[in-house]
Amino acid sequence: MSRGRVLVYGGKGALGSAVLEHFKTKGFWTLNVDLTKNDSADANVVVDPTACWINQESHILKEVETLLAGEKLAAILCVAGGWADGKASNADFIKNADLMWKQSVWSSAISARVASSFLAEGGLLQLTGAAAAVEGTPGMLGYGLAKAAVHQLVQSLADPKAAGLPERSSTLAILPVTLDTPMNRKWMAKADFSSWTPLTFVADLLHSWTTDAAKRPNSGSLVKLVTTGGETTLTPQ
Amino acid sequence: MSRGRVLVYGGKGALGSAVLEHFKTKGFWTLNVDLTKNDSADANVVVDPTACWINQESHILKEVETLLAGEKLAAILCVAGGWADGKASNADFIKNADLMWKQSVWSSAISARVASSFLAEGGLLQLTGAAAAVEGTPGMLGYGLAKAAVHQLVQSLADPKAAGLPERSSTLAILPVTLDTPMNRKWMAKADFSSWTPLTFVADLLHSWTTDAAKRPNSGSLVKLVTTGGETTLTPQ
Repeated sequence: MSRGRVLVYGGKGALGSAVLEHFKTKGFWTLNVDLTKNDSADANVVVDPTACWINQESHILKEVETLLAGEKLAAILCVAGGWADGKASNADFIKNADLMWKQSVWSSAISARVASSFLAEGGLLQLTGAAAAVEGTPGMLGYGLAKAAVHQLVQSLADPKAAGLPERSSTLAILPVTLDTPMNRKWMAKADFSSWTPLTFVADLLHSWTTDAAKRPNSGSLVKLVTTGGETTLTPQ
Repeated sequence: MSRGRVLVYGGKGALGSAVLEHFKTKGFWTLNVDLTKNDSADANVVVDPTACWINQESHILKEVETLLAGEKLAAILCVAGGWADGKASNADFIKNADLMWKQSVWSSAISARVASSFLAEGGLLQLTGAAAAVEGTPGMLGYGLAKAAVHQLVQSLADPKAAGLPERSSTLAILPVTLDTPMNRKWMAKADFSSWTPLTFVADLLHSWTTDAAKRPNSGSLVKLVTTGGETTLTPQ
C-alpha cells in the first residue's frame, strides 16, 4: 500500500532521480514532471520546453489533476534547475539568464500553483535555491537573479493562508553549495568532492521533512546545505 | 551644447517621462527605450513586446549603437516596470508573474547589457526595485520575485570589473514604496498622498547621481525612498 504521493519536479535530473528513487523505496507513489519521462516513476507529466510559462502551467495543472483523481500530494519537491555563467559583457548573458529563469523560476512558480490546488493540508512544498545567490554573483548574473527570485518566493509563501496554499503547509528552500552529481564530477574533476553534498543526503532530508512535520524548519526558511569532510550541516536562514 | 547623453528605459511611462523631461531641461540628449515613442526624446528605440528576451536584447543593442554613433552614455536609467497582484491560488498568478518578469527583469538585464558596451567610464546604471520585495510579498508573488531578482542583480553588478561593466561605473537601485503617479492617484484615490514619493524628487535624485559621482551611495546599494509628510529620505541598504 502507498505511503503517500509525491510530485518531483525535475524528477529525471540527477538530483530528481535520486529523490524519486528514494521515495519509491520508502513506499511512496511518485509523479515525475520533467522534459522527459522517468520510467521509474509511477506517473509522468512531460513538459514541452518550447511552450510558454502560462501554457506549461495549464498543461501541468490539468495532467496532475487527472493523474491524482481526487487524491492529494504529501509533498511537491521542485529540484529542477541548471547552471550557466555570464557577466554583463558576455554575449550569452541574456540567453543564459533566460534559460536559468525558465529552469528555476518557471518550475518553482508552477510548483506553488500546483500546491495551491493539490498539496495536502500540512504538506510540504520544497523549492531549490543556491547558497551563492544570497549575495551578488557577478560572474553568473542570470543564475544568481533567478535563484534570488526563488528565495524571495519561498519567503512570500511562508504563511500558507496569506499566500493561498493549503492549511498548515510548509514551504522550504534548500540552498546547496555544490551537489555531488556525475556532471559536476565530470566538469570539476579536480575539486574536493568531500565538500560536495551527496544526493542521498538531500533525498533523505526531503523524506524526513515530508513524513515528519516536526523535523521541518519554520515555513519560509532558506536552508543552506554546507558539506565539510563528507558531513553536511543545515543552516536555516 | 549637450551636457551628456542618457538612456531612459521605460521613458514613455509616468516616471520615465518625468525623468526624461528633467534631463532635457538640464541640457541632456535623451534616448527613450519603450514600447512606444516619446516625442520629447531626442531619439527613440521602440521595443516589440511580442519579441523574446534575446531578440529584444539584440534589437536594442543594435539600435543604441547606431544612435550613439561612437558616443557613450553618462547614465542608463531603467524605470520600466509595472504592478500586478496574485497569490498562489489566483488563476492569474503565472500570467501576472510572466508580465512582471518581462517588465522588470528583462528591462533591467538588457540595461546591464547595454551598459557593458555603451556606458561611459564612471557612468551610472540605475535599476528600479521595490521596498516591499526586500521581504516576502504573499499577496503579489510575481511582483515580489521579479523585484527581488532585480535587487540581486544590482548586488551582482556592484563591482564593475567583476561584472563586466565599464571602469568606475556605479550600479544603484531605487526602491520606492509608492510613487505619486496619475495611475496610483486614480486607483488609490483615498490614500494619503503625502506618503507617496513625487516623480520630480526621483528625477532630481537621478540627475544628481548622474552629474556628481560623489553624491552616489556605494555601487550595489539598494536605496529605499521613504516619503513622510511630503518629505523623502534615502535609506541605502
